[in-house]
Amino acid sequence: MNKNSSNIMALAPNTSNKRETVCIFGTGDFGRALGHKLIQSGYPVVFGSRSTQTSSLIPKDAEVLSHAEAAQKAAIIIIAIQRQHYNFLTPLAEILHGKVLVDISNNLKINQYPESNAEYLAQLVPGAKVVKAFNTVSAWALQSGTLDASRQVFVCGDDMEAKQMVMDIVRALGLTPLDQGSLLAAQEIENYPLQLFPMWKFPILLSLGLIAFFFFYCLIRDVIYPYVYENKDYSFFIAISITNRICPISALILLALVYLPGVLAAIIQLYRGTKYRRFPDWLDKWMLCRKQLGLVALAFASLHVLYTLVIPIRSFVRWRISSQTVSQALNNKTEPLNTTNAWLSDSYVALGILGFFLFVLLGITSLPSVSNNVNWREFRFVQSKLGYLTLVLCTAHTLVYGGKWFLSPSSYRWYLPSAYMLSLIIPCTVLVIKFVLIFPCLDRPLTRIRQGWERNPQYPE
Amino acid sequence: MNKNSSNIMALAPNTSNKRETVCIFGTGDFGRALGHKLIQSGYPVVFGSRSTQTSSLIPKDAEVLSHAEAAQKAAIIIIAIQRQHYNFLTPLAEILHGKVLVDISNNLKINQYPESNAEYLAQLVPGAKVVKAFNTVSAWALQSGTLDASRQVFVCGDDMEAKQMVMDIVRALGLTPLDQGSLLAAQEIENYPLQLFPMWKFPILLSLGLIAFFFFYCLIRDVIYPYVYENKDYSFFIAISITNRICPISALILLALVYLPGVLAAIIQLYRGTKYRRFPDWLDKWMLCRKQLGLVALAFASLHVLYTLVIPIRSFVRWRISSQTVSQALNNKTEPLNTTNAWLSDSYVALGILGFFLFVLLGITSLPSVSNNVNWREFRFVQSKLGYLTLVLCTAHTLVYGGKWFLSPSSYRWYLPSAYMLSLIIPCTVLVIKFVLIFPCLDRPLTRIRQGWERNPQYPE
Amino acid sequence: MNKNSSNIMALAPNTSNKRETVCIFGTGDFGRALGHKLIQSGYPVVFGSRSTQTSSLIPKDAEVLSHAEAAQKAAIIIIAIQRQHYNFLTPLAEILHGKVLVDISNNLKINQYPESNAEYLAQLVPGAKVVKAFNTVSAWALQSGTLDASRQVFVCGDDMEAKQMVMDIVRALGLTPLDQGSLLAAQEIENYPLQLFPMWKFPILLSLGLIAFFFFYCLIRDVIYPYVYENKDYSFFIAISITNRICPISALILLALVYLPGVLAAIIQLYRGTKYRRFPDWLDKWMLCRKQLGLVALAFASLHVLYTLVIPIRSFVRWRISSQTVSQALNNKTEPLNTTNAWLSDSYVALGILGFFLFVLLGITSLPSVSNNVNWREFRFVQSKLGYLTLVLCTAHTLVYGGKWFLSPSSYRWYLPSAYMLSLIIPCTVLVIKFVLIFPCLDRPLTRIRQGWERNPQYPE
Repeated sequence: MNKNSSNIMALAPNTSNKRETVCIFGTGDFGRALGHKLIQSGYPVVFGSRSTQTSSLIPKDAEVLSHAEAAQKAAIIIIAIQRQHYNFLTPLAEILHGKVLVDISNNLKINQYPESNAEYLAQLVPGAKVVKAFNTVSAWALQSGTLDASRQVFVCGDDMEAKQMVMDIVRALGLTPLDQGSLLAAQEIENYPLQLFPMWKFPILLSLGLIAFFFFYCLIRDVIYPYVYENKDYSFFIAISITNRICPISALILLALVYLPGVLAAIIQLYRGTKYRRFPDWLDKWMLCRKQLGLVALAFASLHVLYTLVIPIRSFVRWRISSQTVSQALNNKTEPLNTTNAWLSDSYVALGILGFFLFVLLGITSLPSVSNNVNWREFRFVQSKLGYLTLVLCTAHTLVYGGKWFLSPSSYRWYLPSAYMLSLIIPCTVLVIKFVLIFPCLDRPLTRIRQGWERNPQYPE
Repeated sequence: MNKNSSNIMALAPNTSNKRETVCIFGTGDFGRALGHKLIQSGYPVVFGSRSTQTSSLIPKDAEVLSHAEAAQKAAIIIIAIQRQHYNFLTPLAEILHGKVLVDISNNLKINQYPESNAEYLAQLVPGAKVVKAFNTVSAWALQSGTLDASRQVFVCGDDMEAKQMVMDIVRALGLTPLDQGSLLAAQEIENYPLQLFPMWKFPILLSLGLIAFFFFYCLIRDVIYPYVYENKDYSFFIAISITNRICPISALILLALVYLPGVLAAIIQLYRGTKYRRFPDWLDKWMLCRKQLGLVALAFASLHVLYTLVIPIRSFVRWRISSQTVSQALNNKTEPLNTTNAWLSDSYVALGILGFFLFVLLGITSLPSVSNNVNWREFRFVQSKLGYLTLVLCTAHTLVYGGKWFLSPSSYRWYLPSAYMLSLIIPCTVLVIKFVLIFPCLDRPLTRIRQGWERNPQYPE
Repeated sequence: MNKNSSNIMALAPNTSNKRETVCIFGTGDFGRALGHKLIQSGYPVVFGSRSTQTSSLIPKDAEVLSHAEAAQKAAIIIIAIQRQHYNFLTPLAEILHGKVLVDISNNLKINQYPESNAEYLAQLVPGAKVVKAFNTVSAWALQSGTLDASRQVFVCGDDMEAKQMVMDIVRALGLTPLDQGSLLAAQEIENYPLQLFPMWKFPILLSLGLIAFFFFYCLIRDVIYPYVYENKDYSFFIAISITNRICPISALILLALVYLPGVLAAIIQLYRGTKYRRFPDWLDKWMLCRKQLGLVALAFASLHVLYTLVIPIRSFVRWRISSQTVSQALNNKTEPLNTTNAWLSDSYVALGILGFFLFVLLGITSLPSVSNNVNWREFRFVQSKLGYLTLVLCTAHTLVYGGKWFLSPSSYRWYLPSAYMLSLIIPCTVLVIKFVLIFPCLDRPLTRIRQGWERNPQYPE
C-alpha cells in the first residue's frame, strides 16, 4: 500500500514537470535552504513539522504538514533534524517502511558517536532505505547559490536504487554526486567536513618553529652584532635580507626531513631483519605527512627565489654597488676579472636554479589530478629518483654558496656559525646515510626484506 | 520477437571477438567517423541509410542497409542524424521497440528547443531506451585519433542497463564515460559543447576596459607630458614601463572587485534583516564570476612580477644607473646610505612578494583537482581568510610604494594624480567596510541572519 | 547449496563487525600484505594454501586452510597467485561456482599473453564471477600504509554485483575504486602499471639530442673561439651563459615541433583531397606526443626565464658593468641615451614576457583537472589560437633579440652563425606555411575536406 502511494506520486508529476515530490522533515535553516533550492530546481516540496503553521521562512510554494502526512506524500524523505531527536521517527516506522531516508546530519566532533548518524538512523527505522548525502554542503552556499567550493556531494547507502534516486536529485541541484559505496562509508563522510587540514598541522608548526629560531639567530648575527661592534643600523635587513636567509634554510631542512623517515625506516628494517613489524608510531605519522612537508618546503623555496631575484632592485644594493664603483673610479683602479669567483658564483646560482626547477616539478606531480594520472612505478620514479636529485642539488647549492668562507674563523660572530651551516646538518646526514644504503652489501638484504624475506622466521616456511 | 533477435546478435559475436554489432543511422561525417573508430575497436558496424549504395567514404568493413534492416541487426542504434529529421523514426517505432537509441546530436544555440533532443527522441519512439552520449566529442578528433582534449563523454539515460552498454562502448573507444544520471540531464549535456568560457566574458571585458583606460592615462602622464614640457622622447616606455603600471593597477582593482560583492551582500542582508530575499540580479551574477575575476587579477599580478624582475636587465635602466654613478664619480662625492629609504624600498618589495605568494596559493587552491580535495570549511578558510590577507598585503604594497610622494603636489601632472592612487580607491573602500563589519555590533546580527534568523518575521514562528 | 553457505557467511559477521570473510589464495608477499590490510580494516581473512602450516609471516588473526576449505568460507576469493599456476583452480571449479574471484595479477611485459590474465581465469573457471582489481597497488605501499601515490584501484568485471562487492572492499581499505567496465578492460588494466611515461620517451630523447648539439655548438663559438684567438678563459660561461642559450633555443624548436605536424597533416590532406586516408605512422605518433613536446618546451622556457632573471646577480655581470662605468668615469665622458636601443631592448624583453606568460597558460590548461573542465571548443580555442600566438610571440622575441647584429658578418665565428639563428629555422617555416594555409583559396577546400568532403570520391554519393 505504501509503495503504491509512492508510485502514484512518481507518476503524477512526471506528466507536468517530471520531478517527484520530496519531503523534508524539519524546518531548520538547512532544511529550508534545501527546500528553496529544490523548489528552484522544479521539485514539489512538502515539509514535515511538529507545528503545521506556515512561517514566512518556509518557501511559499512548499506545503507544511505533520510528519506522518508529509511522509506519505513522497518517496524520498530528507531528515533535516539533529541526531539527538531521531527518536521521534520510531513511531513513524510503519509509514517510513520502504521509503528512502536521506541522512544529511553532521556532528560537532570527529567520531563523536560509536556509529555514524546514518547507521543509527538505519537501526531506528529498519524498514527504510537510508542514504547519506548532502552533509558536506553548507546551507549558506546552497542558499546564496554561489557554490565556489567543492560541488561534490558524497553519497553512500546500501540500496542501489535509493542511492540512484538521491544522486539524481543531487545532479538536478547542480552538484556532483560521488558514490562512496555502502552505508559503512557514512562514518568517514560525516567526519569529512569537520577536519581543517589535518595533515598540515605538524609541517606548519614545525616550519613556524624553524622561522622563529632562525629569525632570532640571524637577527643576533646580522643586526645586533654590527650595531654593538660597528654601531651601524642594519635594522632594514629584517624586511628582505634576513627573510631571504630564513626561507632557503627552512626549505632545505624541511626537504631533508621529507627523506629522513625513509632512511630511518630502512635502518629499522635492516636491524630487525623483517618488514612485518610495525614502525614506531612517530615514524608512521611522519611518513604520512611527507607530502605536506615537501610542499611547505617548496613554498619556502619559491619565496627564496622571489627574494633573491629582487636583490638588484633593492635601493640598498643599488647604493652599495654604486658607491663601490664610485670609489673604484676615484681611486683610479680597475679590478681584473676573477675567474674562480665567476665560476663559484655562476655554479652556485646554476645549482640553485636546477634544484628549484626539479622541486617545482615534484610539486606539480603531487597535484591530485596529475598524481592520479601516473601509475605507481612512474610516481615512485619521480618522487624517489627526482626527489633525491633535488636534495643533492639544493645541498650542493648551499655548499658552493658557502664557498671559500666555509669554516673560515672570520665568519663566526659571537662563536655563532653562519645560519646556512646549521641548515646543512640534516641534509648532509640524510645524503650520507642514503649513500651508504646504496652499497650492495646493504641494498641487497634490504631489497629482499622488502619483498617479504625474513632473517629470523619463527616458523619454517 | 524483436528482443530475441537482439539476443541472438549479442551471443553470436561473443564467441569470436566479443563485440556486439552496433548500428549507425546516418552516413554523415560524424556517423562515418564513429563507424571508423568502432570498427578499429573491433565492433561490427552496420549503417542504416536512405540509399543503400556503398560510398568510398563509408568504412570498407561496414555494411550499408536500409534503416529497418540495419536496426534489426543490432541492439544499439546510434542516431547520427540531425534533430529536424528525427520524424522518419516514427514509422520504425515497432522495430526500434526495446532497442537502445543513442542520441549524439548537438544544437547550434544554447537552449534552442524547449526540450532536449534526447527527450524529443524518447517522445517520438516511446518503446526505445534513449541514451544521450558522444555529443561532446568532435568528429575530427575521433577520426584523427588525436584526442588531446577532454576524453570525457557525458552519458545520461533513464535505463540503467542501456546506459551501461553505451558506457562500455565509450570505454572501448578509449574514452572516459561520465554518468550524468537520468535523461533530464540531456539538456545540460547538449548545451555543454556550445559554450565558450561563459563565466569569463565579464572579467575579460572588464579588464580590457581597465587596460585601455589606464594605458591612455599613463600615456598622457608619462609620455605626452614630458614630450610637451621637456621635449623628451620616452615613447619606449610603452613596452615595459607603462605595461608594468597597467598590470599591477588592474590586478589590485580586480582583486578588490572579488571581495566587493561579499561586503555589499552583507550590507544588504543587514539592511533587510533577513537572508531569505534574493539579491539583485547584478549582484548574483557578480558573485558567480568572482573566481574568474580573481584568476584574471592573478594573471595581471604575475605579469607585474615578471615585468618588475626584468627591470635591471633593461638597457634604459642600465644607462640611467651608469650615468648616475659616472656623474657621482665626476663630482667626486659619495652619497651616504639613507636608512629610511632602504626601509621603505625593502618593505614595499617584501609586502609585494608576500602578497603575490599568497595570491598564487589562492590560485592553486582554485584548481579543480585541489578544490575538490578540500572540504567546505578548508575552502572557506583559504578563500576568505587568506584572500583578505592577500588584499591587505597588496594594498599595503601599493601604499608603501607611494611612500613619501603620496599626495605631494609635484606628482600631479596636468592635475592628474598618479595612476596608482586611482587604483587604491576600491581596495581601500572594501577594506574599510570589511573592517567596520568585523565590529561585534554588526558582526553578531549578521551571523544570526546568516544562520536563518529574521528581524521582522511575517508570521510568528 | 554453495550459494547458501556464502549467504550464511554474509549474515553472520554482519551482526558483530559487519564485514564478510575474505579468502585469499596464495601466501606470497602481496597476498600477505593484502591480508594484513584487510584484517586491519576489520575483515575476517582466511588463506587458502597448499601447506596449511601457519608461518609467522601470515597475519596472526588469519586462518590457513586448504584451498577447498578456504574457498567454502567466503563469497569473495582473491587469487594472489601467478598466472602460470592458475591451472590448479580447474579441479576446484565446482566449489568456486558462483563465487567472486578477484584477479590481482600483473605481467612482466606489456601484452605478454594474447588474452588478459583475468579473461584467462574466467575461461578456466566459467562458473565464477571474475573481477579484476588491485593490480595497480604495490605490496610495499599496502604494507607500509603510506600510499603517497595514486589511491586509485581500477576495477572491471562482467558481473555488476560482484564488481560492487569488490569496490566496497577497495573503499574499506581506504582506496578509491574506479569502475572500468566489463572484463574486456582487463588487458588495459594489466598493462597500466608496466608503463613508464610511454609518451615522454620521444620528447625527452629529442630534447637531450638538442641539448647535446647546441652545447657543443655554443662551446665552440663562445669558449673555444675566444680561447684560441684572444686567449681568454671563459670556461665559466658553461654554468649559466651557455645553458641560458641552450634552453631558449630548445624551447623554441620544440614549441615549433608541436605545430609542425598540424601543418604537415593539412598539406597531406590538401594533396590527397580527402581526410579518410590514414596519415603515415610517424606523423600519427608525432601528433600523439604533441602535448608532451609542448610541456618539455615549457620546462626549457621556464629555465630560460630563471637563468635570465639571475643575470644581474652574477658576479661576472656585476664586474663587467662596474668596469664599464669606471672606464667611462675615468675617460670623463657620459653616453647619451640611445632611444632605438632602449626600444629594441625593451620590446624584445616584453615580447618574451608575453610569450612566456601565454606558454604558462597553455601549460595550465593541459593539467588533467583543468582540461577535463573545458569543452572541446574551449580546448581548441586555447590550444590552437593561443598556441599559435605563443609561437608568434616567441619567434618575434628571438628575431628582435637578434636585432641589429642579425646576419651581420661579424657575428660569424669560424663561419658558424649564432646559435639563435639556427633555432629560428623551424619556427619561421611553420609560421610561413600556416600563414599560407590561412589564405581562403587553401583554407576553404581544407575546411571542406575536414568536414568529410572528398575531391575524388570513388563512388558517386
